Amino acid sequence: MQKPTFFRSTALALAAAFLCPSALLAAPDAAALRDAALKDEIAWDIVEGLTTEIGPRLAATPKEAQARDWAVAKLRSLGFANVRIETYRMPSWERGREEARVVVPFDQPLAVTALGNSGSTGPDGLKAEIAYFRTLADLEAAPQGSLKGKIAFVSHAMKASQDGSGYAPYGQVRRIGPSIAAAKGAAGIVIRSIGTDSHRLPHTGSTRFEPGVAPIPAAALSIPDAENLERMLKRGRPVRLRLLLTPRFPGEQESGNVIAEVPGSDPGAGIILVAGHLDSWDLGTGAIDDAAGIAIVAAAAKRIMDAGRPRRTIRILWAGAEEVGAYGGQAYFAAHGHEKHVLVMESDFGADRVWRAHYRLPAAARPVRDRIASALADLGIVSSALPARGGADIEPLVNAGISVIDLQQDGTRYFDLHHSADDTLDKIDPAQLAQNVAAWTAVLSIAANAKEILH
Amino acid sequence: MQKPTFFRSTALALAAAFLCPSALLAAPDAAALRDAALKDEIAWDIVEGLTTEIGPRLAATPKEAQARDWAVAKLRSLGFANVRIETYRMPSWERGREEARVVVPFDQPLAVTALGNSGSTGPDGLKAEIAYFRTLADLEAAPQGSLKGKIAFVSHAMKASQDGSGYAPYGQVRRIGPSIAAAKGAAGIVIRSIGTDSHRLPHTGSTRFEPGVAPIPAAALSIPDAENLERMLKRGRPVRLRLLLTPRFPGEQESGNVIAEVPGSDPGAGIILVAGHLDSWDLGTGAIDDAAGIAIVAAAAKRIMDAGRPRRTIRILWAGAEEVGAYGGQAYFAAHGHEKHVLVMESDFGADRVWRAHYRLPAAARPVRDRIASALADLGIVSSALPARGGADIEPLVNAGISVIDLQQDGTRYFDLHHSADDTLDKIDPAQLAQNVAAWTAVLSIAANAKEILH
Ligand SMILES: [Zn+2]
Ligand SMILES: [Zn+2]
Ligand SMILES: [Zn+2]
Ligand SMILES: [Zn+2]
Repeated sequence: MQKPTFFRSTALALAAAFLCPSALLAAPDAAALRDAALKDEIAWDIVEGLTTEIGPRLAATPKEAQARDWAVAKLRSLGFANVRIETYRMPSWERGREEARVVVPFDQPLAVTALGNSGSTGPDGLKAEIAYFRTLADLEAAPQGSLKGKIAFVSHAMKASQDGSGYAPYGQVRRIGPSIAAAKGAAGIVIRSIGTDSHRLPHTGSTRFEPGVAPIPAAALSIPDAENLERMLKRGRPVRLRLLLTPRFPGEQESGNVIAEVPGSDPGAGIILVAGHLDSWDLGTGAIDDAAGIAIVAAAAKRIMDAGRPRRTIRILWAGAEEVGAYGGQAYFAAHGHEKHVLVMESDFGADRVWRAHYRLPAAARPVRDRIASALADLGIVSSALPARGGADIEPLVNAGISVIDLQQDGTRYFDLHHSADDTLDKIDPAQLAQNVAAWTAVLSIAANAKEILH
Repeated sequence: MQKPTFFRSTALALAAAFLCPSALLAAPDAAALRDAALKDEIAWDIVEGLTTEIGPRLAATPKEAQARDWAVAKLRSLGFANVRIETYRMPSWERGREEARVVVPFDQPLAVTALGNSGSTGPDGLKAEIAYFRTLADLEAAPQGSLKGKIAFVSHAMKASQDGSGYAPYGQVRRIGPSIAAAKGAAGIVIRSIGTDSHRLPHTGSTRFEPGVAPIPAAALSIPDAENLERMLKRGRPVRLRLLLTPRFPGEQESGNVIAEVPGSDPGAGIILVAGHLDSWDLGTGAIDDAAGIAIVAAAAKRIMDAGRPRRTIRILWAGAEEVGAYGGQAYFAAHGHEKHVLVMESDFGADRVWRAHYRLPAAARPVRDRIASALADLGIVSSALPARGGADIEPLVNAGISVIDLQQDGTRYFDLHHSADDTLDKIDPAQLAQNVAAWTAVLSIAANAKEILH
């Protein structure tokens, strides 16, 4: 039933757009702002600046603090109001040395990186036999204690998709695999990177050990290295690995959100929150994850601001510490969850073009949705029948039931780069980045000025 | 004048191929052997084995020695005659730690790798201001002494091309840039990698210091890092770099060539030498450089051997120590240069398809050339008007005037991978590798059995 409904409503919206201009008061402005944004250079300037002048900015480190100061200066220079840092404290983790080497039956170094929250091997490293599992299910099926003294290796391979739908299931190897292996007595675990490229650059990301399970050394191999290790294992002889990982847990440290606003003319009309995250993993310069996202939302908000005061306040959240547990989004909700948010949106899936929009709006906001869908259609963006779900930094607000719209980016090559050293500025296509700004500008222009309720 | 001659001769060859079968006694066999080789699995097996069981095999190290033993076992198991190692001694160089970090005005790590023959910064590293040069010509133009205490940075960018023609001129930055910078008093030098990719994987390769010029620390930045450094420099403030490189020169060590043969039926007809190199750089597993090359020549030679004894001896040379100065090729020439070589060929440009053939043959071998060109045309391979030039391992024989044929591979993506950690098995397309074997099989079948002289 969803598809017919979807197509009928889209057809109605398109008919309205072409036949009933009087119903679409905000549309002409939105269209003009949208098209001007296709030449946007603000977002590029932000991404270029943050990746060049700050670079890697792991949560709760001095680099993330430098990034906050940089962000405040940048947002003030763009003319936003109420630019501020809101700090909070959080547990921290820091990468140390990382080396892996097959020592039996062959002798080869492997490209490896520790997962966030990995335990340490100690400075002398760990030498152990590999226990191989093709899938997470195979690891889960291993008998209790059967991994004693071994290094588990799980090679489950994710494939690329436009909607990134492989990440939720395959990413579980990273998220819960280490805790499962530890609970079964493993001395350590290496996984095939949760990625879709073929480069010697492993992909990091957080893992989480269940309460009562002591962290073991946990690392990702680059995909060519994981495949090499698989080939070694296929020869049928025991394979021994030397693993050296020396991450540290420096305890509670300071992190923070950066907030800025385009004040609305009608204080009762509520806040539209647009978010991305300022922190990044430490391996790359965090260009696609998530300098692009924070740049897109700020560039679109600036375009609305420069076009005249909108009805609703647009609040920009450049959240801290998303990568390591979404601490910034939780701190924001604790401080601001009681305020009147009427729409929340997040950009955190790279810098390639928006191809699809998801909505979660009340029935009374249907005309707004239709105007937005019409404005997006001109950019080649289709409406999805799936509900909008937001992102990690706005998750508490989404869970509280606030309206949400997702502008979903093309994720076909996102996991080639995600959480690896290869997340750098050169991967961003300025034209696709500007298309994002245009889509966000269209949505914000319509939503911030709509007479109808959004929530 | 070359083009008309070329087209006319090709037309004659094609006419001969279709109209005069009696003139082409060897051709039917060559075509059948060629087409069977399109299903070749021997070459893949060699590349897969060497990259999985040995991996990196830097010249004059224990890993190169392991590779020689592996090679002898593999060539014997394939049934070749006179399989042997011929050792020689040579100066050696070993990579140490390598780190680079911008410390002023920003703070970012850069992906870096030492060039072969680089000097050491010592264990404490070197901190110095960058002196930026867009091109090698700009570095050459710098006044004597103007680099005193600085780290030179040259960012000359090579572009990809099918024939790899960018490597000779742009590679000069790596080959002679460090010696030029050292002579002008530089404390160190970093260059943009001689590569065509956009990954955080720097490309190594040998540099050479002129006699009387003491080696300085010399390294390549990955291309995204070189571009990041350029963006920092464009901001107009002094940029300071911390560079740590601790390579060593362990003195004279043993290296060696591996040789195998398909004995010919007519000892007076001379030797056809087919070569590639067994050593690799230490960053990748040396799949495209040059496991592919040694695999292609051996797979083709085995196919000729299995089809019955050829008239001429085919000698396989898996040379040692090509990457660091072609010591293996020189040692081979010193030991065997006096023997009757009638044709020399080398495969050392990756594993992508052969698209063009170059020839340097005497006029009396024109019918052989025409039969070869005809057999290659079926594989989509065109004849070049440029003379064949061989490769580094056969260069002394080429310089001595021996006949040579080049089967030139498509190099469009070769320098994405070349001399970087990304030179691994996953980059090889089995179908293109087999096309190489088919081309070599066709050439060897015709040349080894030709009644005409080749030289
Ligand atoms: Zn993110
Ligand atoms: Zn992320
Ligand atoms: Zn080579
Ligand atoms: Zn090479």
